[in-house]
Amino acid sequence: MHELRKDPLLNRWVAILDYSLKPEDYARKMTRRAEEKASCVFCAGREAETPPEIAAIRANGTEPNTPGWAARVIPNPKPILHIEGDLDRRGVGMYDRMNSVGANEILIETPEHGLRAEDMGSEQVKKVFSLYKERMADLEKDARMRYIFICKNSGRGAGAMYSHSHSEITATPVIPKLLKEELDSAKHYYAYKERCIFCDIMTEEQRAGARVIADSGHFIAFCPYAPKFPFDFWVMPKRHSCAFQDMSGDELDDLSVLMTSLLKKLRGVLDEPAFHYVVHTAPNRIPRRDHWHTLGDDFHWHIEVTPRLVRSSGFEWGSDFYVLTTTPEDAAKYLKEA
Amino acid sequence: MHELRKDPLLNRWVAILDYSLKPEDYARKMTRRAEEKASCVFCAGREAETPPEIAAIRANGTEPNTPGWAARVIPNPKPILHIEGDLDRRGVGMYDRMNSVGANEILIETPEHGLRAEDMGSEQVKKVFSLYKERMADLEKDARMRYIFICKNSGRGAGAMYSHSHSEITATPVIPKLLKEELDSAKHYYAYKERCIFCDIMTEEQRAGARVIADSGHFIAFCPYAPKFPFDFWVMPKRHSCAFQDMSGDELDDLSVLMTSLLKKLRGVLDEPAFHYVVHTAPNRIPRRDHWHTLGDDFHWHIEVTPRLVRSSGFEWGSDFYVLTTTPEDAAKYLKEA
Repeated sequence: MHELRKDPLLNRWVAILDYSLKPEDYARKMTRRAEEKASCVFCAGREAETPPEIAAIRANGTEPNTPGWAARVIPNPKPILHIEGDLDRRGVGMYDRMNSVGANEILIETPEHGLRAEDMGSEQVKKVFSLYKERMADLEKDARMRYIFICKNSGRGAGAMYSHSHSEITATPVIPKLLKEELDSAKHYYAYKERCIFCDIMTEEQRAGARVIADSGHFIAFCPYAPKFPFDFWVMPKRHSCAFQDMSGDELDDLSVLMTSLLKKLRGVLDEPAFHYVVHTAPNRIPRRDHWHTLGDDFHWHIEVTPRLVRSSGFEWGSDFYVLTTTPEDAAKYLKEA
Repeated sequence: MHELRKDPLLNRWVAILDYSLKPEDYARKMTRRAEEKASCVFCAGREAETPPEIAAIRANGTEPNTPGWAARVIPNPKPILHIEGDLDRRGVGMYDRMNSVGANEILIETPEHGLRAEDMGSEQVKKVFSLYKERMADLEKDARMRYIFICKNSGRGAGAMYSHSHSEITATPVIPKLLKEELDSAKHYYAYKERCIFCDIMTEEQRAGARVIADSGHFIAFCPYAPKFPFDFWVMPKRHSCAFQDMSGDELDDLSVLMTSLLKKLRGVLDEPAFHYVVHTAPNRIPRRDHWHTLGDDFHWHIEVTPRLVRSSGFEWGSDFYVLTTTPEDAAKYLKEA
């Protein structure tokens, strides 16, 4: 059984898998190529070869696990978390562990192999985002789960496991460290200023102007003042809202068009880069936890997009201090003009 | 002028370089190969082509910047921090910035191109560590500097900028985020337990036994309970001490032999992996800062070694949650038996 263990210094949970790769497996892992089309079970017509679907947007009258779908969610064939069992949190000597309970799902974004997110069209992107909302709403009913983490990896350089366009949906019994930090920091700012830090950042970005890439009406896209990587950008709803799944229909339409346009710009400027994006949203609210009682006010959901352009060294990994070889002002300018 | 900017959410400083690469520069950057021997100015005989040396261990009677050295420290030809000027900390709208003041040095570990750290012999490794001590002692005299960060990258996969064996020494006007977190956490543990968390970890590891790789008398090497990457290991002095530069002569001898042996094991087990190591030591103590008044008791220096075996995706980058495909117990067993 996989387990979760806590780093006693950094208060970070990690997942330890029970199948334990041998040293020689890593050479193979690093050189393994993304699957060729012939072997891709995510393509239309091969539904029977994947684990049974959990949710899908499909043509009227088509049966689950048959063709006719536009987007489809399946359990991850190689899960790091298991949906059954209880957490069994306990100490091991001075350390802390729990069972690796949670959900790992793959959202197949299109039946068509090789179609990139920016080429799907905004109607298809809207289906993908609608499924994010649906899965979040369903998974957060599980009281063992504290967070629903959604990300998309595109390209081997971004660590994508499959070449077929997909997103990953992960429900975890802990709030992942980076999100926890962000939530705590926003809470702290709120306690001091009585204002949402993200709303303040948006106001500041609109005032400064130099880092804004696009304003779509309901959303703003900008390069953050102190990013981690060159050409990082954030997409944020203008309306204050803590949770992705509370997005209105109008906002969803707007976001689908905007993301399509932004990913096209990214490709235009950077020669089809590998990239990932991560949805930053509030922790699960059912049951709402006291610790987060002001959450609706002090957190503001958004999406962070990162093209993978640079290789990180011991300096970045060991210090969490980053060196930006392109200023966010220049990056915004390139993306805006693309 | 480069500048340092603070991420208002994660309280992380990043360096923004003023030369701002263009989008097309990144494709070139990613495919650039480590220099070939012919063009390596770090080799013996090409001293005049590097910036003038700051420190060196050299044969009696040889002049600076001529052959005859065993190990040599030079300013980084492409610094991200500059030694001149004051910090000029100030706000920009709601954000915070300061000048990019600090030191960037390269320690050339051997005159011989292509000689890896594990093949230098422990006498040579000792010279490298002695120069770390010397540079730390010198750089921490600068009251603007708060931390001396030392790391080594070996191989392109670890982000090494040069193929010639080298370490990087960086003096920063802020404590890098990851170290700050570790220091804060150790301080918090000390306040609660009145014991050093690292001493407790070492006791626990000796009791459990399964993650210990080697015990050299003065040092213990072990895989941590909840590592970030497979085959990560730590090397820790048994004597409680907060600072690398306080190492005794006996400890230095012992560490040099042990590190040589551990890096040889790593290569034996993992087929010459790219790796990095980072020295985790106390912040600068001159002037000693009140905030760290118990530092001598609550922090414990050590070295963290990480082979670069896996590619990180949006999941790890976006969550700071890691998936370990080899258990630390198995990793320790492979390394111990190598």
